[in-house]
Amino acid sequence: MAGGHTVGVIATTPEPPYVAVIFTSIRATAGGEPYDEEGYVETAERMEALARERPGYLGIESARNPGGLGITVSYWATERDAIAWKGVAEHLVAQRLGRERWYAQYRTRVASVAREYGT
Amino acid sequence: MAGGHTVGVIATTPEPPYVAVIFTSIRATAGGEPYDEEGYVETAERMEALARERPGYLGIESARNPGGLGITVSYWATERDAIAWKGVAEHLVAQRLGRERWYAQYRTRVASVAREYGT
Repeated sequence: MAGGHTVGVIATTPEPPYVAVIFTSIRATAGGEPYDEEGYVETAERMEALARERPGYLGIESARNPGGLGITVSYWATERDAIAWKGVAEHLVAQRLGRERWYAQYRTRVASVAREYGT
Repeated sequence: MAGGHTVGVIATTPEPPYVAVIFTSIRATAGGEPYDEEGYVETAERMEALARERPGYLGIESARNPGGLGITVSYWATERDAIAWKGVAEHLVAQRLGRERWYAQYRTRVASVAREYGT
């Protein structure tokens, strides 16, 4: 997942256990502005739409501080589902563009959710 | 953790396994603006400072879409450390204020990080 801005709601996930992929990133900039913002947003939205169609997809949440850190968390039924999504051809292209073009720094963490609570 | 805006870097975490607490929230609003922003920011910064002093604290990352979804992820050595932080008296007060005052909706997920990669 390249990291999208379009998601404004808290994901409705089932009873744990399930898998969370936590993607934290800092955008590359040019002249103080995010580099290639248009291409980035287009790809992020496309990846989000693609992810939703994948087996085991449970939801996604995304937030970014203006000009700063971004966090995207995607939720999957199993780690196998998350790994399969990472290997989808069009997603691999987006990941490469992310590394080479859009992100100054990023970190992906794959985690197993054991408990959840809230409103 | 009430959710802070002050953290602008990707957390430097050790080799997995460790624990991630994913806190996703939507702020309550009044007249289209976040309700009690001043009190919220002050408490969030205080909680962040308190968390840093706790045993097992590994790092924190936080992002919020302007006027929208926020995600704060705190990292802990063990689930016991994360649970202990949840039970700290001053933090309990902040959690109550969050539920009653600052958040229209929130969700907390406790997860075990198995793998991490990135730049």
